Amino acid sequence: MVKKVLPKGRVKKNSIKHSKKVGLPAGSLVHIGERKAEETRVTLIAYDAAGIDETLLETPAACRECRPGREKFWLNVHGLHEPEVLKEIGRRFNIHPLALEDILNTDQRPKADDYGDYLYLVARIFDYHPETQEISSEQVSFVIGENYVLSFQERATGNFAAVRDWLRGDRGRIRQLGADYLAYALLDQVTDRYFSVLEQISDRAESLEEDLIENPVAEQLTALHQLKTDTLSLRRAIWPLRDLVNTLLRSEQRFFKPDTQLYLRDVYDHTVHLIESLEATRDLIASMLDIYLSSLSNRVNKEVRALTVVALIFMPTTLITGIFGMNFQFMPLLADHNGFFYALLLMGIIATSIGFIFWRRRWL
Amino acid sequence: MVKKVLPKGRVKKNSIKHSKKVGLPAGSLVHIGERKAEETRVTLIAYDAAGIDETLLETPAACRECRPGREKFWLNVHGLHEPEVLKEIGRRFNIHPLALEDILNTDQRPKADDYGDYLYLVARIFDYHPETQEISSEQVSFVIGENYVLSFQERATGNFAAVRDWLRGDRGRIRQLGADYLAYALLDQVTDRYFSVLEQISDRAESLEEDLIENPVAEQLTALHQLKTDTLSLRRAIWPLRDLVNTLLRSEQRFFKPDTQLYLRDVYDHTVHLIESLEATRDLIASMLDIYLSSLSNRVNKEVRALTVVALIFMPTTLITGIFGMNFQFMPLLADHNGFFYALLLMGIIATSIGFIFWRRRWL
Amino acid sequence: MVKKVLPKGRVKKNSIKHSKKVGLPAGSLVHIGERKAEETRVTLIAYDAAGIDETLLETPAACRECRPGREKFWLNVHGLHEPEVLKEIGRRFNIHPLALEDILNTDQRPKADDYGDYLYLVARIFDYHPETQEISSEQVSFVIGENYVLSFQERATGNFAAVRDWLRGDRGRIRQLGADYLAYALLDQVTDRYFSVLEQISDRAESLEEDLIENPVAEQLTALHQLKTDTLSLRRAIWPLRDLVNTLLRSEQRFFKPDTQLYLRDVYDHTVHLIESLEATRDLIASMLDIYLSSLSNRVNKEVRALTVVALIFMPTTLITGIFGMNFQFMPLLADHNGFFYALLLMGIIATSIGFIFWRRRWL
Amino acid sequence: MVKKVLPKGRVKKNSIKHSKKVGLPAGSLVHIGERKAEETRVTLIAYDAAGIDETLLETPAACRECRPGREKFWLNVHGLHEPEVLKEIGRRFNIHPLALEDILNTDQRPKADDYGDYLYLVARIFDYHPETQEISSEQVSFVIGENYVLSFQERATGNFAAVRDWLRGDRGRIRQLGADYLAYALLDQVTDRYFSVLEQISDRAESLEEDLIENPVAEQLTALHQLKTDTLSLRRAIWPLRDLVNTLLRSEQRFFKPDTQLYLRDVYDHTVHLIESLEATRDLIASMLDIYLSSLSNRVNKEVRALTVVALIFMPTTLITGIFGMNFQFMPLLADHNGFFYALLLMGIIATSIGFIFWRRRWL
Amino acid sequence: MVKKVLPKGRVKKNSIKHSKKVGLPAGSLVHIGERKAEETRVTLIAYDAAGIDETLLETPAACRECRPGREKFWLNVHGLHEPEVLKEIGRRFNIHPLALEDILNTDQRPKADDYGDYLYLVARIFDYHPETQEISSEQVSFVIGENYVLSFQERATGNFAAVRDWLRGDRGRIRQLGADYLAYALLDQVTDRYFSVLEQISDRAESLEEDLIENPVAEQLTALHQLKTDTLSLRRAIWPLRDLVNTLLRSEQRFFKPDTQLYLRDVYDHTVHLIESLEATRDLIASMLDIYLSSLSNRVNKEVRALTVVALIFMPTTLITGIFGMNFQFMPLLADHNGFFYALLLMGIIATSIGFIFWRRRWL
Repeated sequence: MVKKVLPKGRVKKNSIKHSKKVGLPAGSLVHIGERKAEETRVTLIAYDAAGIDETLLETPAACRECRPGREKFWLNVHGLHEPEVLKEIGRRFNIHPLALEDILNTDQRPKADDYGDYLYLVARIFDYHPETQEISSEQVSFVIGENYVLSFQERATGNFAAVRDWLRGDRGRIRQLGADYLAYALLDQVTDRYFSVLEQISDRAESLEEDLIENPVAEQLTALHQLKTDTLSLRRAIWPLRDLVNTLLRSEQRFFKPDTQLYLRDVYDHTVHLIESLEATRDLIASMLDIYLSSLSNRVNKEVRALTVVALIFMPTTLITGIFGMNFQFMPLLADHNGFFYALLLMGIIATSIGFIFWRRRWL
Repeated sequence: MVKKVLPKGRVKKNSIKHSKKVGLPAGSLVHIGERKAEETRVTLIAYDAAGIDETLLETPAACRECRPGREKFWLNVHGLHEPEVLKEIGRRFNIHPLALEDILNTDQRPKADDYGDYLYLVARIFDYHPETQEISSEQVSFVIGENYVLSFQERATGNFAAVRDWLRGDRGRIRQLGADYLAYALLDQVTDRYFSVLEQISDRAESLEEDLIENPVAEQLTALHQLKTDTLSLRRAIWPLRDLVNTLLRSEQRFFKPDTQLYLRDVYDHTVHLIESLEATRDLIASMLDIYLSSLSNRVNKEVRALTVVALIFMPTTLITGIFGMNFQFMPLLADHNGFFYALLLMGIIATSIGFIFWRRRWL
Repeated sequence: MVKKVLPKGRVKKNSIKHSKKVGLPAGSLVHIGERKAEETRVTLIAYDAAGIDETLLETPAACRECRPGREKFWLNVHGLHEPEVLKEIGRRFNIHPLALEDILNTDQRPKADDYGDYLYLVARIFDYHPETQEISSEQVSFVIGENYVLSFQERATGNFAAVRDWLRGDRGRIRQLGADYLAYALLDQVTDRYFSVLEQISDRAESLEEDLIENPVAEQLTALHQLKTDTLSLRRAIWPLRDLVNTLLRSEQRFFKPDTQLYLRDVYDHTVHLIESLEATRDLIASMLDIYLSSLSNRVNKEVRALTVVALIFMPTTLITGIFGMNFQFMPLLADHNGFFYALLLMGIIATSIGFIFWRRRWL
Repeated sequence: MVKKVLPKGRVKKNSIKHSKKVGLPAGSLVHIGERKAEETRVTLIAYDAAGIDETLLETPAACRECRPGREKFWLNVHGLHEPEVLKEIGRRFNIHPLALEDILNTDQRPKADDYGDYLYLVARIFDYHPETQEISSEQVSFVIGENYVLSFQERATGNFAAVRDWLRGDRGRIRQLGADYLAYALLDQVTDRYFSVLEQISDRAESLEEDLIENPVAEQLTALHQLKTDTLSLRRAIWPLRDLVNTLLRSEQRFFKPDTQLYLRDVYDHTVHLIESLEATRDLIASMLDIYLSSLSNRVNKEVRALTVVALIFMPTTLITGIFGMNFQFMPLLADHNGFFYALLLMGIIATSIGFIFWRRRWL
Repeated sequence: MVKKVLPKGRVKKNSIKHSKKVGLPAGSLVHIGERKAEETRVTLIAYDAAGIDETLLETPAACRECRPGREKFWLNVHGLHEPEVLKEIGRRFNIHPLALEDILNTDQRPKADDYGDYLYLVARIFDYHPETQEISSEQVSFVIGENYVLSFQERATGNFAAVRDWLRGDRGRIRQLGADYLAYALLDQVTDRYFSVLEQISDRAESLEEDLIENPVAEQLTALHQLKTDTLSLRRAIWPLRDLVNTLLRSEQRFFKPDTQLYLRDVYDHTVHLIESLEATRDLIASMLDIYLSSLSNRVNKEVRALTVVALIFMPTTLITGIFGMNFQFMPLLADHNGFFYALLLMGIIATSIGFIFWRRRWL
C-alpha cells in the first residue's frame, strides 16, 4: 500500500504497476496506484420522483448496513486506499472479488464486465493543467445494478457535481427516470471531460504549428514529443471507452432500458467524434514533425550558404593582396603613387560585384 | 450563444467546440457554432403530382401550426441561432430532444439515426473559395418522415436551389415520386458538391507538383501542409458520409422504397468514388513531400558544390602568390622582366583548367 | 459535351470530372469525358452452335428495332459521345436510366450492379504506350442479360478482336456455351490486358532500379514519381475489379451458370495475382526511393569529402609560403642558394603525404 | 539432440530451429532447442480439499505407472531433453504424438489445441536480467484434462512456486476448486511475468528518452535498436497468448467451468492491457528514433556553424595582413611608427565585432 | 514455349509472364515459364499396407492407360514443358482444363481449388543457394483424389525423396493411412523447406546487422535491398500458402479425414509460425535501414568535423605569418635574432592548444 498522499498525479506514459501484485492469488484486495485522497469519503444519495436524501457514511460498517429509504440510490466513494471500505461495500452489494480487485487496481483499461446482477464499468477521467501544460488522469469505476449506481473515484474531482445538482433540482426529469439514466448521466460527464482536454491539446498543437513554420528551434521538438505522448495517453483511454459504450449498446437491454439506449447512442457518437478529432490531431502532429525537420534544414542551409558566400567575397580580394605581395622586381603599379589605392579599389569592386550577384540571386 | 455574424467560416482544422455544453443535461437546446445567417428563414414547400405551394413561415408559432395542403412537403430552415424556432418545429413533428440538440450543435459527425417515426441525418457541405484558396464547410441536417423532409442549414447557400427548380417544373418526375426521392435528391446535391471541392484541391495539388520539381521553395511546404489539412477535413466528412448512405442501404426499407434504393446505391457509389479520389490525392500529396525534400536537398547540394569548386579555383592561385611572395634571396623568375606576367599566366592556366575539369563533370 | 476528338488520352491522375453534371437530375444522359472516337459504331453479332451473323447497325433507330435471328447475341458499341444511340438501346433492352448514365460517365469506378433482368458491369482497360512510356485507360461497360451481352467502349481498341475470332471459328466451343460464357471471355480479355501493362511497368521499375544504385541523378526521381503515379492508377482500377468479380462469384447464380462460375473463379485468381504483383511493384518502388536518397547522399558526401581533402592539401603548403614570406631579418634558408627549392620540396612532400594518407583511407 | 547445458539462454531474435527436423515423419520425438536443465525432474502433486501429497517420480517408468491417491493432481516436468520421459507420460495420459512433438519443440508459437480428452496449451515465459539488460524466454506447455494439469518447462524457474505455496496452504480456496482453476492460476502466473518484463523495458525506454534529448551519442542508437528487438520478441509471444486465452473463453466450456471463465476473462483483460502497453512502448521507441536523429542533426549543425563562424573571423584579419603585405612603394601607415599596432588594432576590432554579432544571434 | 534449359532459375522479383497467353481461349495448354528439366519423368508409386510398386511411365500414352495394382497410388511428374504428357494425365484422371492450365502456368499464386472429384493445390518450393546467396523457387501442383495423389514439379529437386523413403519402409505407418495422409506428408515437406530458407535469410540479416553498426559501407545498402526483395518473394508465397491450408481445414472433410485434419492443423501452425518469423525478419530489415542511414550520417559527420578542425588549426598560424609578412617599417621582433623562431613557437603553441581543446571535446 502506498503511503504518500499526492495531490494530483502526472500521467505516467506507461503505467504498468501491475507487477506489485505478482504472486498474490486472484481476488486479493490491495490498492495499486498512488494515494491521491487524504481520506475515504462515502456518500449515499437516495432519490425518487418525490425527493432526495443525502447521507455521509462515516464508518466501513455503515456501508454494509445502509438501507436507503427511497426507490433508487447512488453511492459514491472518494479515495481508494482503504480496502476495508471496499470489502464492506462488496459484502453489502454482493460484488465479485475480481470486480473489487479491479476497482482498487487504478491502472485498469476501460472495459465493461457483466456479472449477472450488476454491470461493472471502469473508465479514465482526464484533466488538463494549464499552468504546467500537463495532463493527468484518474480511474473511475461504476457498479450499475437494477435500482442503484455505485461510483468509485481516486479523489474528489468535482466531475460529478453537475449530476448531483440535477438530482437536487430534478433538472431534465432525472429523478423520475431510472438508475440507468443516472448511470448514463455520469458516463456522459466522463466523456464530456475528454472534449475539454482534447480541445486544449489541439490548441497547443495549432499554436505550436505556427511557431514551427516561422522559427524552428530545438525546444519545439520536445514540445512536439510531449504532445505526441499526451495524445497517446488519451488514445489508450478513448478507444476502449468507445468499445465499452458499444458493448453496452449491443448487449441485451437488461441494465439500460430502450429509452436510455437512445442517450447511450449519443454518448457513443461522442466517443467516435472524440476518436476522429484525436486521430486528426495526431495526424497534424505527425505532419508537424516533417515541417519542423524541413524548416530546420531550410534554415541551417540558408545560414551555411550565407556564410559560404561571405567566404567567397574574401577569396578574390585575398588573392589580389597576394598578387601585389609577390616579390618580382618588375611589376606594374607598384611604383605608381596611387597603386595601393587602385588595388584597394579593385578589391572593393570585386567584393561589391560578388555581393551584388548573390544578393540578386537571393542567396544573402 | 454566439453573437457575431460571420458571412462564411473558414474550416477550423479541429473544431472541438463541444466543451461549451459541458455541465448541461442531455437535450438542452443551445446553438453551438458560429452564427452564419442574419436571420432564421423557414420555408414550406408542399407538393404533389398536381402542383406546388411555397410558403414563408414568419413566426416560430407558424412552424407549430403549419398544415400543408398537399400530400408531400419539404420544410427548409436557414439559420440555426434561434433555438425557439427549432423547439416549435420539434413540437410540431414530435422530434426527439437529442435530434434537436444535434441539429443545433454544428460540429456533428455525419451520421444517420433512426428514431422510429422518422430518420435523422446529418452531413457537411463543403465550399471552395478560389480567391483565398480556402475551403469552408457547414452542417446540414435532414429529418425524413413518411411524407415529408425537413432540412436545416446554417445559412442560405443555394445548394438546394436546383432541387427547388426541379420541384417547380416537375423535372425528372420528382413531384410524382415520394418524399424519399426528394430526400435522395437533396443528399445527391450534398454529395455532388464534394466533387467540385475535391476537383479544385486536386488541381491545386497537380499544379503545385509541377512547381515542386522545377523550383522548390520554402513557401511550397506551407502550401503542401495546407493541402494536407484540407484533405484531412474532407476525409473526416466523406468517410462517415459513406457509412451514412451505407446504413440507409442496408437498413430495412421503411423510409427509402425499393425504387429509391437504386438511386441511393448510386449516391453510395459516388461516395466510394470520392473516397478513392481523395485517398489518391492524399497519396500524391504525401509523395510530393518526398519530392520537395529531395529537390531541396538536390538544389542545396548543387549550390554548396558550386561554391566549393569556386573556392578550389582560388586555392592554387593563392598558393602561387604565396610562393612568389617568399623572401628567398635566390628565386627564379623574380628578376625576369616578364616574371610577374608568367606568374599571372600560370594562375590563369590553373584556374581555367580546374574550372574546365569541373565543368566537364557538370559540377558547375 | 466535349467537342474535341482526342486519339487516345493520357491518364489523368485524378480524373474527377463528375462536377460537370452538378445540378442535373438523376438519369440525365450526358457524355462525360473526352471524345475518343470519330463516330459511333454499333455491331450486332448473333450466334448459336449452328452459325454466326454479323450486322452493322447504322442508325440509332436500328438499335431499337434489332431482332437477332439466332439464340444468343452480342451488341458492341464503340464511341459514347452520342447519347441518342444509348437512349435507343436503353429503350430496346429496357435499361435503367442510372445504368445508361453510368455508361456515358467515363470515369466510373469498376462495379457490378444487379438490375434484376440484367447485370450492369463497368471496368477499365489499360494501355501502355512504349514510345512515351505512358499508360492510358478507357472505360468499358457490359450489360449481361439472359441470352445477350451488350458492351460499350469509348473507342475501337481491338481488345475484343480475339473473342470475335473465337466466335467466328467456334474455338473453345464458345458458340455452344451460353451468353454468360461470352461475358466471361470478354472479362477475361479485360483482365489479361492488365498483365501486359503491369509487366511493362515492372520492367521499367527494375531497369530503373539498376540505374539508381549505379548512378543516382535527379531525373530518376521524376521517373520514380511517374511509376508511383502509374501504379496508383492501376491500383484504383484493379482493386474494385477484384471486388466486381468476387461479387459475381458470391451472388446467386442467375447470370453465371455453375459451369461458367469455374471460369469466373479463374478470372478472380488472376485479379488477386495482379493485385499481389502490383503491391510487390509498389513495395519495390517505395524501397527504390530510399535507395535513391541514400545513393545520392552517399555520392554528394563523397564529393564534398574529396573537395575538403584537396583543400586540406593546400593549407599546409600555403602556411609554408607564409612562413618564408615573413619579414624577419634573421631567418634560416633565405640566403641559401637552394632555399627556394628546399621550400618547394617541403611543400611537395607535405602535399604528397596528405594525399597518400587520404588515398590509403579511400577518401579520394 | 543438443548436448551442451546452458544456464539460461538469451532470446534469439528469430529462433527458427525447426529445420533440424526436416525429413523426419510427423510425431517423431526429438528435443529441439538448447538444453537448459541439468536433469529432468518430474514432480506429482495430488490434492483435494482434505489435503495434499507431493511425490518426486524418479524414473521414466514411474511416470507411466503413477496413480495419484487424491481427486485432482498436477504433474510438473522440468527439463525436456529426455524424450523417453515424455514418451512414458504420453503413454500414461494418452497424449497425441503431435502434442508431445510440440512440447519438445521449444520454439512453438503460443497456441491452444483441443484434442478431445484434453487441452494442449503452449506459451512463453519471459525473464529480464538486470545485470546484462537482456531478456530471455522459455517455453512452457500445459496439458489440461478433466481432473489434472500437466506442465512442462525447459528448466526450474520458480515461476510456479507461488502456486505450489497456495496449494499447500489452500490460499484462495485453490484446493477446493477444480483442476481448471489450477490451470488458470498457472496461466495467470505466466501472464503476470510479462508485466515485470514490460515494466523494465518501459523504464529503460524512458531513461533512454531523457538521455537522448540532452546528449545524443551513437551508442544510444544501438540501445534503441536493442529495445526495439526486445519489444518485437515480447510482441511475438503476447499477441498469440491473447488469442490463446480468447480461444479458451469462446470455446465450449468443457475444460473451464463457468466460474473459472470469470477468472479467465480477467487473464484476457491482462493480455489486452499488456498488448496496449507494449504497443505504446513501441510507439515511444519509434518516436525516440526521430528525436535521436533530429537531436544529432541539430548538434552537428551547431558545431559546423560554430566552426564556420570562427573561420569567418579569421578571413578579414588575414585580408588586412595581406593588404599591408603588398609591395607598393607608396602606402599609407607603413612608415608610421605605430602603423603596425594600428593594423593589429584594426584586426582586433573587426574580429571582436564579428564575434559579437554572431554571439548576439546566438550562433556561437 | 521456351527452348532454353536452365538448371535452376533465380527468382524474378515480379514474375508476371502471364501476358504470353493473352489472346488464347481459356483452357489452352501452353507451358509458361522457364524450362528447368531436361526431360519429363513420370513415376507411379502404388502402395498399400502390404507393399509398394514403383513404375516409370515412359510414354504419354502410358499415363493414360496406367492401372495401379494397389489400393492407393502416387503419380509424380518432373518437367512440365511437354503439354502432351499433361493432356494424357488429364484424360486419365478427368482433370478440368483450367486445372491443367494452372499446372503448366508456373507463376501461379498458391491456392486450393475444389473440383468436386478432386482437389487441386498449387504452392511454391523455395531453395537457397549459399554460394550465390540467392533464392530460387519452383511451382509444385497437387491433384488429390479419393485414393491417389498426383504431384507436378518443374524439375527433380529431391524435395519428396524423404516421403518416398517413408513409403518404402512404411515409417510412421504412412502406407496404412489413406492418400490424404500422403498429401499431408508432401505438403509438410513443402512447408518445412521454407524454414530452412527463412533461417538462412534470417542469419544473413543478423550478420549484416552487426556489420552495419560497426562499419557502414555503400555495398550493405545493396545487400539490404536484396534481403528485402527476398523476404518479399517469400512473403508472396507463404501468405497464400497459409490461406490454402486454412481453406483445407475449414472446408468440409471430404478429402482430408478427421485424423489427418489434426496433422493439417499442425501444418497450419507451421505456416503461421513462418509468417511471424518472416514479418519479424522484415521488421529487423526495415530497422536496419534506419541504422545504416544514421551510422552513415554519423560517420560522415565525424569526418567532416575532423577535417574542419584541422582547417581551424591552420587559420591562426597562417594569420601570424601574414602579420609578420606586413611591410611596416617599425615592427617588433623583426630585427630580433630569434624573432623567426619566436614566431614559429607561437604558431606551434596555438596549433597545439586548438588541437588539445578539440581532442578534449572528442572532436578528433
